[in-house]
Amino acid sequence: MTSRITEVTITPVAFRDLPLLNNVGVHEPFALRSVVEIRTEDGVSGLGESYGDAAHLDRLRAAAQRLEGLDVFDLHALGREVVASLAGDTTTGGHGMGLQVTSSNTADRVLSPFEVASLDVQGKLLGRPVSDLLGGAVRDEVAYSAYAFYKWAGHPGQDEDEWGAALDPAGVVAQVRRMVDEYGFTAVKLKGGAFPPEQEVEAIKALRAEFPDLPLRLDPNGAWTPETSVWVAEQLEGVLEYLEDPTPGIEGMATVAAKLKGRTDMPLATNMCVVAFGHLPPAIAADAVQVVLSDHHFWGGLRRSQDLARICEVFGLGLSMHSNSHLGISLAAMTHLAAATPNLDYACDTHWPWKRVEDDVVVPGVLSFSGGAVKVPTTPGLGVELDRDALARLHEQYLGCGIRNRDDTGYMRTVDPGFSPRTAVW
Amino acid sequence: MTSRITEVTITPVAFRDLPLLNNVGVHEPFALRSVVEIRTEDGVSGLGESYGDAAHLDRLRAAAQRLEGLDVFDLHALGREVVASLAGDTTTGGHGMGLQVTSSNTADRVLSPFEVASLDVQGKLLGRPVSDLLGGAVRDEVAYSAYAFYKWAGHPGQDEDEWGAALDPAGVVAQVRRMVDEYGFTAVKLKGGAFPPEQEVEAIKALRAEFPDLPLRLDPNGAWTPETSVWVAEQLEGVLEYLEDPTPGIEGMATVAAKLKGRTDMPLATNMCVVAFGHLPPAIAADAVQVVLSDHHFWGGLRRSQDLARICEVFGLGLSMHSNSHLGISLAAMTHLAAATPNLDYACDTHWPWKRVEDDVVVPGVLSFSGGAVKVPTTPGLGVELDRDALARLHEQYLGCGIRNRDDTGYMRTVDPGFSPRTAVW
Repeated sequence: MTSRITEVTITPVAFRDLPLLNNVGVHEPFALRSVVEIRTEDGVSGLGESYGDAAHLDRLRAAAQRLEGLDVFDLHALGREVVASLAGDTTTGGHGMGLQVTSSNTADRVLSPFEVASLDVQGKLLGRPVSDLLGGAVRDEVAYSAYAFYKWAGHPGQDEDEWGAALDPAGVVAQVRRMVDEYGFTAVKLKGGAFPPEQEVEAIKALRAEFPDLPLRLDPNGAWTPETSVWVAEQLEGVLEYLEDPTPGIEGMATVAAKLKGRTDMPLATNMCVVAFGHLPPAIAADAVQVVLSDHHFWGGLRRSQDLARICEVFGLGLSMHSNSHLGISLAAMTHLAAATPNLDYACDTHWPWKRVEDDVVVPGVLSFSGGAVKVPTTPGLGVELDRDALARLHEQYLGCGIRNRDDTGYMRTVDPGFSPRTAVW
Repeated sequence: MTSRITEVTITPVAFRDLPLLNNVGVHEPFALRSVVEIRTEDGVSGLGESYGDAAHLDRLRAAAQRLEGLDVFDLHALGREVVASLAGDTTTGGHGMGLQVTSSNTADRVLSPFEVASLDVQGKLLGRPVSDLLGGAVRDEVAYSAYAFYKWAGHPGQDEDEWGAALDPAGVVAQVRRMVDEYGFTAVKLKGGAFPPEQEVEAIKALRAEFPDLPLRLDPNGAWTPETSVWVAEQLEGVLEYLEDPTPGIEGMATVAAKLKGRTDMPLATNMCVVAFGHLPPAIAADAVQVVLSDHHFWGGLRRSQDLARICEVFGLGLSMHSNSHLGISLAAMTHLAAATPNLDYACDTHWPWKRVEDDVVVPGVLSFSGGAVKVPTTPGLGVELDRDALARLHEQYLGCGIRNRDDTGYMRTVDPGFSPRTAVW
């Protein structure tokens, strides 16, 4: 018995995004994603979601051409075909996260949506949720974290958006208050790197005052020097559950970790210096980080993200989960993965609240937040269904929006021509 | 949809074994195994095989009592129940390998046969071979290694057995010649630690002369000091594909590895100092070994053995596979695992030729050797079926044989009362 792939469709989509600030610039008016659909000889189809940058789309399409005839259970063959499809790849970029994470593994990024879609098909064929294919759900709901951003009131030349400005600690607190009230989040992450570290420390202290019981995290995406990183860690000792990527690189993080040793027990987390399996040995040898944020979009899918989880468990590292701007297919995949990962120690990141409810490609109703958590779908596969009208609408939006690559820096420069990404500058 | 466990049966069995010599003594006239069968509400059953030592059987039975009602897809719950069943465990021993490997993880040893049986059921429910549940077979046959032993002509007080004596290099060569001719093996492992290292070096050189093209391995089970280990490695430079456990412990192996660095590129392999996930971080930090031998019986089953494989891949370690005296259920499981593990770099160990053909619990015909390899079963599950008459016969043999724990040392002492296990003595 086989279940061979007969067709693979890749549809780029765009959905409205808000002017969220980070160390490399500001989010553009639209976020890009790709929707991957594979169909098999038995008429079953499966869904995956990934980045929508042009170079990545080209790579997804090149890989897709090699997948016809492949058995959806043969994930090793899928991996081999993806690697083979990249043999002649001379394109650059397309990392999906602008300048923030550029050293993830290209083959793993390309593999991811096909692997997720294959697992979706497997689950449907078996009548089992994807979490069962990953060893079974250890929790029936997955906690997500509020993801606060400094932001402009609205995009340049547009009206103020529904979230308004958050350009100082009070603005951040108001934003998180609303997000927590609406979604029930039980943890809060603040994207930093947008303002001098003193202000971001004040914002975290203001959040602590407003939310005495919620775990807090701060992530400046490597905007600081090791010295500043140590200073912030000491300022926020006992306030943050972890400090994420204060400074760039394994070496820089190891320097910070070594300086903190014995002075604070603040864990350092990363989603920038350990973003591929090859980064684990040097990071572990250097004792550079205490928490790794997984992300199935660049760790090669759900099974390989579980490999990462096991490595973290074996080597005594904490595990959390990173997010990009994403749609419902990704939320479903993240939820199944988190549910089936016993040592996921922290609430997962999600950009979900920044997306309009109507901007999605899945039929509404399955994924919803209650108490800051999403119930793990229990229907076969990922448990979400493609809404073809919505897909067509978001694809039209892609065609019309003019954006083909995420470029937070270029967009920032349309407002501030002298802007430079802030990497280890503060 | 669930597939809940309704019944778990554990049957100890014994099958004839030959007087194979090693560093801790000699194999007794019977080898013990346990056959685990789980049955689910849909009437599907699955098979696992493990050690047969008394303490291990007690632990298997204690775990089995907690498994009723568990969904066979919920492998995480299975793991939790096994851990819970061990909470009050005060028994000792039952490692399954006499004095040779005593530091494997008890929960992983107990989990293993239940996990394999669960995957067998999963595969049957899905109509898929177990290799498909492990990501797909990357090869359609799995190469095994001839496993040569020094041995007595027969058990004390019994006639000479069909293999006769192998007590010097010529005897070892004759044994391997017959084994290679009969099975077509393309690699050869010699169990050492039975005679002074000079003789075992000579035996390897004699094997090289007789079999110029076959990869060779030598495994004295930690019988040597680090100094002797270095001497042997230098003697056999370019002759062995790896040297397995020349000396005991991570520290000892690291000492040998450090001394060999720059002088020879002989990889050191282990099945003794890295036998649980907790051993990986210190072994990797110490650069103690270059090849790890997996063994699903003590690494917690097939999925966890794949975790080990990924860790080896990520940390640049080679991967091979260890064997004990085993029956067809284990051979099927080993074959599926090896087939679905891309980075299994070496032919797997097996004790198969030492077992009489009629001494098995599976219906004959599925598993056979050709060119030293076993074809990966492609039928649902493990692809082997329990032969209930044979099971009953081997259980009767267990009841009658009087052996309840593997004790190579005690058996040796019936012949040589002053015998001491040889650990780092030569």
